[in-house]
Amino acid sequence: MTALHPSREQFQLEEVLAALGHPIRASIVRALASGEEAFCGSIVPDVPKSTLTHHWRVLRESGVIRQRPSGRKLYITLRRDDLDARFPGLLDLLLSDEAFGKTAWQPSTT
Amino acid sequence: MTALHPSREQFQLEEVLAALGHPIRASIVRALASGEEAFCGSIVPDVPKSTLTHHWRVLRESGVIRQRPSGRKLYITLRRDDLDARFPGLLDLLLSDEAFGKTAWQPSTT
Repeated sequence: MTALHPSREQFQLEEVLAALGHPIRASIVRALASGEEAFCGSIVPDVPKSTLTHHWRVLRESGVIRQRPSGRKLYITLRRDDLDARFPGLLDLLLSDEAFGKTAWQPSTT
Repeated sequence: MTALHPSREQFQLEEVLAALGHPIRASIVRALASGEEAFCGSIVPDVPKSTLTHHWRVLRESGVIRQRPSGRKLYITLRRDDLDARFPGLLDLLLSDEAFGKTAWQPSTT
């Protein structure tokens, strides 16, 4: 299994914005902001795995994260260097907004 | 007819990013960047009106644009001051990206 990761040159700003413009994905980006690699199950533990599968894909295909499979686990890093190189200041700007990525995720009650 | 416009304090960064993260909406923002009010039919003239109705709503509800009805026409401005006040540097950063809002819009051939 090799996840498809666009090269830095292939990033498109509109796609990156669309990827970042969602409460769960914004939480993921904030959780990964330190740059440390994280096990995918530990990043937003309250969100069901089936919901996350879609979000990993959107984040990966736009270039926001890198996925590294290891055995049956998946490890995630924020592609901070690549994003900073292509869109200087964007991540800093988003992470400096206190509310970004902090909307509590509410499980559906239906 | 009074369009619903959120106050500056109601803006949410994730919603603004989602609004900006679309090729047609990015083109609209670029076209309005000068700050001049524009007739809605003149901004992205190649895009069908039925397609645009949805995009005006997304842009308006997130706080990116202001709509002013005048007779049967609708005039649009970018809420640049409000966006700059809430998310300083964001619009400048996006508009400094040469490709942002310049993806040619392709009419569907189906």
